[in-house]
Amino acid sequence: MSTDTFDFATVVRGDLPAPAGKWAGYPAFNFVGGHNAPESIPVDDLIEAATTVLQREGRTLATYKLESGSLGYLPLRQFLVEKLKRHAGIECSVDEILLTSGSLQGMDLINQILLQPGDTVVIEEANYGGVLPRFATAGATPVGVTCDEDGMDMDALERTLAELASTGKTPRYIYTIPTIQNPTATIMTRARRERMVELAKAYSVPIFEDECYSDLIWDGQRPPAVYALDDSSRTIFLGTFSKSIAPALRVGYVVAPWSVLSRLLLCKTDAGSGALEQMVLGEYCPKHFDNHVAHLNKLLKAKLDVLIEALNAQFGTAAEFAVPKGGIFLWVKLPTSVDTTRLAQIANAEQVAVNPGAEWSIEGDSARRAIRICYANPSTDTIRQGVAQLAAICRREFGVPTRIANVDQ
Amino acid sequence: MSTDTFDFATVVRGDLPAPAGKWAGYPAFNFVGGHNAPESIPVDDLIEAATTVLQREGRTLATYKLESGSLGYLPLRQFLVEKLKRHAGIECSVDEILLTSGSLQGMDLINQILLQPGDTVVIEEANYGGVLPRFATAGATPVGVTCDEDGMDMDALERTLAELASTGKTPRYIYTIPTIQNPTATIMTRARRERMVELAKAYSVPIFEDECYSDLIWDGQRPPAVYALDDSSRTIFLGTFSKSIAPALRVGYVVAPWSVLSRLLLCKTDAGSGALEQMVLGEYCPKHFDNHVAHLNKLLKAKLDVLIEALNAQFGTAAEFAVPKGGIFLWVKLPTSVDTTRLAQIANAEQVAVNPGAEWSIEGDSARRAIRICYANPSTDTIRQGVAQLAAICRREFGVPTRIANVDQ
Repeated sequence: MSTDTFDFATVVRGDLPAPAGKWAGYPAFNFVGGHNAPESIPVDDLIEAATTVLQREGRTLATYKLESGSLGYLPLRQFLVEKLKRHAGIECSVDEILLTSGSLQGMDLINQILLQPGDTVVIEEANYGGVLPRFATAGATPVGVTCDEDGMDMDALERTLAELASTGKTPRYIYTIPTIQNPTATIMTRARRERMVELAKAYSVPIFEDECYSDLIWDGQRPPAVYALDDSSRTIFLGTFSKSIAPALRVGYVVAPWSVLSRLLLCKTDAGSGALEQMVLGEYCPKHFDNHVAHLNKLLKAKLDVLIEALNAQFGTAAEFAVPKGGIFLWVKLPTSVDTTRLAQIANAEQVAVNPGAEWSIEGDSARRAIRICYANPSTDTIRQGVAQLAAICRREFGVPTRIANVDQ
Repeated sequence: MSTDTFDFATVVRGDLPAPAGKWAGYPAFNFVGGHNAPESIPVDDLIEAATTVLQREGRTLATYKLESGSLGYLPLRQFLVEKLKRHAGIECSVDEILLTSGSLQGMDLINQILLQPGDTVVIEEANYGGVLPRFATAGATPVGVTCDEDGMDMDALERTLAELASTGKTPRYIYTIPTIQNPTATIMTRARRERMVELAKAYSVPIFEDECYSDLIWDGQRPPAVYALDDSSRTIFLGTFSKSIAPALRVGYVVAPWSVLSRLLLCKTDAGSGALEQMVLGEYCPKHFDNHVAHLNKLLKAKLDVLIEALNAQFGTAAEFAVPKGGIFLWVKLPTSVDTTRLAQIANAEQVAVNPGAEWSIEGDSARRAIRICYANPSTDTIRQGVAQLAAICRREFGVPTRIANVDQ
């Protein structure tokens, strides 16, 4: 840097995280990130939808927010009213849906209006890695609740709320991913959802329900959303088309009372989310959504089967997991001798990317033996090769699995 | 609200602005907002671009950020490298461009990494209404510099910087819209741009250059961007396709050194901006951008001519303005007896929307007689009728203009 060149490090805020590194492309065996299956993208139908909607109303692109106002493209909100009723039992109007630039913008807006430094939030112990740094940025402390195969343990939630109350604390919200929990892929039972609402009422806590994976259930069977079971309007619901159609289309949605949406809108200073993506989905979804999701689920289930087969072959009993009913990831526990933070680091350098448990949980040491494996994006061949490579690295570094592909090593 | 219904007002942050009102549609005579001409939207070419790019690489939508990384769709950044060189004299690489969800996301990110409560920023006195509340939210105080037909007055800038320095203050940045300033529509001369860079160096201040309207110049003639004239890399450049193609497509861009972009990326927590809009523009622009913008400028110039004709006919000498060399708005000064804040309020209730000067300037009382009239979106008939209606309201409420349509009233 010449002496004449301005140094921006002298003027940026002191409280920013470390700057990003340059992008080096995706690793060959990429088992991280919410990417979807390339072969699932309904390219021809998206082209048809784009053509039809642009021919009919392309000129409205001249107007910020089209003719739909700040909540987003009206036909897509109309589709969602019907879809949410049918899939999740949610009764809402188009005025209770805000379309956002992916569900992450929705999450950031919700946190922006609610979280303050010093806040406590209650979450599922193993959790989406993206929320944890957000709490840190907001100065909020997450308190974890244990989960089992039926989702968050309600007795544990009650104890947590009671303990917090005994120290005078009301959590700002309970954050839950009840339907295909991330990373455990569990579906919370209806009874537990009902009890969550009762506990939230008893302790005067709002609920923040994140349903981003809920369209991806092999048999389509699921209980109603917490939002639908909550007769006290304390639930904010977050959804997305990233997982059901395509992640690079940044279209998410918040369902909430107007008293919430009107505040989110004040913080949504982007002059509207991208209209073309909303228009294309608004045209595509009423005709194709259900069939597409059924096809996608078959495809994902087949990839999961390949992953499980590969894990069994390569790791044997060293890899423990519950077989998910849906989603795009598997939460795998390895022997306690494996430090997955170090495993992930070493594997990443050798082109195999997995999420280490410590970044996807606040449960402490016990998560250090877990990894999250995302299986939607790689081909079945890549899944097989990647798992074999991961097993080889794991054995080299940690001495397990002791058998690989049923052969003693 | 039943007694059982949760009241979110009890849990939202106390420092939020008042909640938004529900959207009631656009007024019949809409002279506010950066909307463009519906008849200018290149619908057929956008359909062709969407079809071509989706056929070729639609499957990459399965991957967050496509195959391009966090800075955005690579072919669109490649187009921008070439366009910025040709139009604005900017030499940059694809690694110095960050695509954002409209230029407003870029502006918010820039402010997020730079502004801190107590900061001072130096701006053109009459300014984009959208920046002023942003400074308020960030706790930053804007200091205005006067402008004339050649843009910001550099002697006034020097005095302002010297005064601030004498009180120990270094402004966080100089925010400037040098090319089609908003709302005055002036183009800053090259000599002034060079002097701005010298002053910024002398006072160790970064420059934040907002060029959102710079493609809309009737004769295409413009000096190089401040960014291009700055050999000290202290300038952050903000651009957009909202004005040149379509506002509802939310695609803007920040050009800056990596030391800035790497920090913006850390704050850009949306997992990427909408890919489809970037892909469609990346396909459309190399073939069509220049021809489209030439056509658009002819169309906008014709609308401006109609607006000026209508103002002359309806307001006569009561409406003072400089004839712009480009853009989509006219900054009109009315007699001092007209309080345009009240005028705008009354006119809005009668379906005529204009921006009152007080919201588009920090110059104090003198701006209360100004209005900003956006003319790109309404048809020429609507422009004529709207101006006539505005004149009638103004005369009824303030007694001016005394002659309307060359007839004493």
